[in-house]
Amino acid sequence: MSILVVGSVALDTVHTPFGTVTDAVGGSAVHFAAAASLFAPVQVVAVVGDDYPHRELDFLRERGVDLSGIEARPGESFRWAGRYGYDLSSRETLETRLGVFADFHPHIPQAFVSPDLLFLGNIDPVLQLEVLERVGGARLVACDSMNYWIEGRRAELLRLLGRVDVFFTNDEEVRELANESNLVAASRWVQACGPRRVVVKKAEHGAVLFDGHQIFFVPGYPLEDLRDPTGAGDSFAGGFLGYLHGVADLSPGSFRRAAVFGTALGSFAVEDFGVGRLARLTREEVASRVREIREMTQFDEQPEEAC
Amino acid sequence: MSILVVGSVALDTVHTPFGTVTDAVGGSAVHFAAAASLFAPVQVVAVVGDDYPHRELDFLRERGVDLSGIEARPGESFRWAGRYGYDLSSRETLETRLGVFADFHPHIPQAFVSPDLLFLGNIDPVLQLEVLERVGGARLVACDSMNYWIEGRRAELLRLLGRVDVFFTNDEEVRELANESNLVAASRWVQACGPRRVVVKKAEHGAVLFDGHQIFFVPGYPLEDLRDPTGAGDSFAGGFLGYLHGVADLSPGSFRRAAVFGTALGSFAVEDFGVGRLARLTREEVASRVREIREMTQFDEQPEEAC
Repeated sequence: MSILVVGSVALDTVHTPFGTVTDAVGGSAVHFAAAASLFAPVQVVAVVGDDYPHRELDFLRERGVDLSGIEARPGESFRWAGRYGYDLSSRETLETRLGVFADFHPHIPQAFVSPDLLFLGNIDPVLQLEVLERVGGARLVACDSMNYWIEGRRAELLRLLGRVDVFFTNDEEVRELANESNLVAASRWVQACGPRRVVVKKAEHGAVLFDGHQIFFVPGYPLEDLRDPTGAGDSFAGGFLGYLHGVADLSPGSFRRAAVFGTALGSFAVEDFGVGRLARLTREEVASRVREIREMTQFDEQPEEAC
Repeated sequence: MSILVVGSVALDTVHTPFGTVTDAVGGSAVHFAAAASLFAPVQVVAVVGDDYPHRELDFLRERGVDLSGIEARPGESFRWAGRYGYDLSSRETLETRLGVFADFHPHIPQAFVSPDLLFLGNIDPVLQLEVLERVGGARLVACDSMNYWIEGRRAELLRLLGRVDVFFTNDEEVRELANESNLVAASRWVQACGPRRVVVKKAEHGAVLFDGHQIFFVPGYPLEDLRDPTGAGDSFAGGFLGYLHGVADLSPGSFRRAAVFGTALGSFAVEDFGVGRLARLTREEVASRVREIREMTQFDEQPEEAC
């Protein structure tokens, strides 16, 4: 039993106040796999050009990730370049060269059509729907999206939402999607479109899990040194689904813990450029950070003398 | 034993997308007292003009608040007018008329000089220091400030910080005060100036309590309807100190619960204009919201099958 991720594989050039990396392996599928592979067997479906540095994914192979679904096509790999501002909360896209990604149509190998969990990374909702046609029977289907698709593929995205269990989004996106400035009301609106669970990521401000009528908050892990926010959201999703893969019972408590694991993985991801930190991360480090997050959020019932 | 608050008493004219109020009773001392008086005897020191509508503070008198330290002087009361934007997260000051507040020098009645807890609301740090000279022996001293004083009275504010136990601030202010964009590093810097506890309020994103080496997060209570954010921070401080007044043991756990009570009071405060909601709030409603916040943040240790 495995987790199947379909998404982008890119070469990222990232400028932050702390440095620059050029053509670092990235993309939603790579960041997701780097996080989820700590916990579960992962299968990746994506496309790259004939210039792709496949050896840089060796750390994923060593963790048992099945990369045989990464199709290599003639042409250039997808490249993205961006620059983050002073406090890393704003970013500017400097360049997007789609290359072979422009014509991506996910080809799902026969060995991949029955995953335990399915993650539809941030690609055209039309393609996400195509994958759903081909892959059946997953215990849980989750997807991500972005403003570009909310604006340009609204109808298809709403159709997709009717067929997924978990929607990963951020505060700006969910407000835009629901056309509603209040985060709670916006998330409720999205839940009414289909997914029982909506996970709203808020970067340094943490994440909110809307699960049926319940709301669960995880704070952002307080980092003093962060280097590169690229891929934090996909690492969050990888930690979330990676955790759930090991859990027999998809109970509300399991989803809460999944959100905490997601937060932990997202926080490690930003500690270094690209997938650098996740590549050398251990499960013990994750468990330790999860305990820290618990320690930073728990409080006892009020004692009698308080009232 | 009581809580003494020294701060502003103002008449606020507030425009939000949900309506307008004119000359509503407000100011740091009034918002603080409206929250803290649910839990503790409160004494207020402030100044108003001869135009002040004293009857509108009857709800405080009925809760046992001692308003005899509000000096009425010839002239106009302090007036503030502001307008909030669409999502209530930005505001523009339309008018500030200091009136008698311009010459405010807190006169502390003899009956007020030995409070159990002291809250120095957001006024000139020079005046906050004057109050500290006169009031001794409080079990806990807390203060608030704002960008205006951080910029214009930096030396005095730093001197004050060396003498308080708890500093209430917000994310923008603490970054400006410490000249450091990272919230954790900025808060640590302020702790090193004196206060063992720094409470960073982040509006809808909740609050962070830095207590010695510990960090504790409280989420913002998820409101679907909020009307007027004015005074939320002082209501937070009122809930925080009001809770602590009833607690014999000022332990780290007590401060965590205080931060949750502060969050609850701040969330009620924004549900209506001015002090409207706090004036009709009950302790049972607060206890219920505290339980809700606990429910929205707690998670169990990971079960064995996860790793």
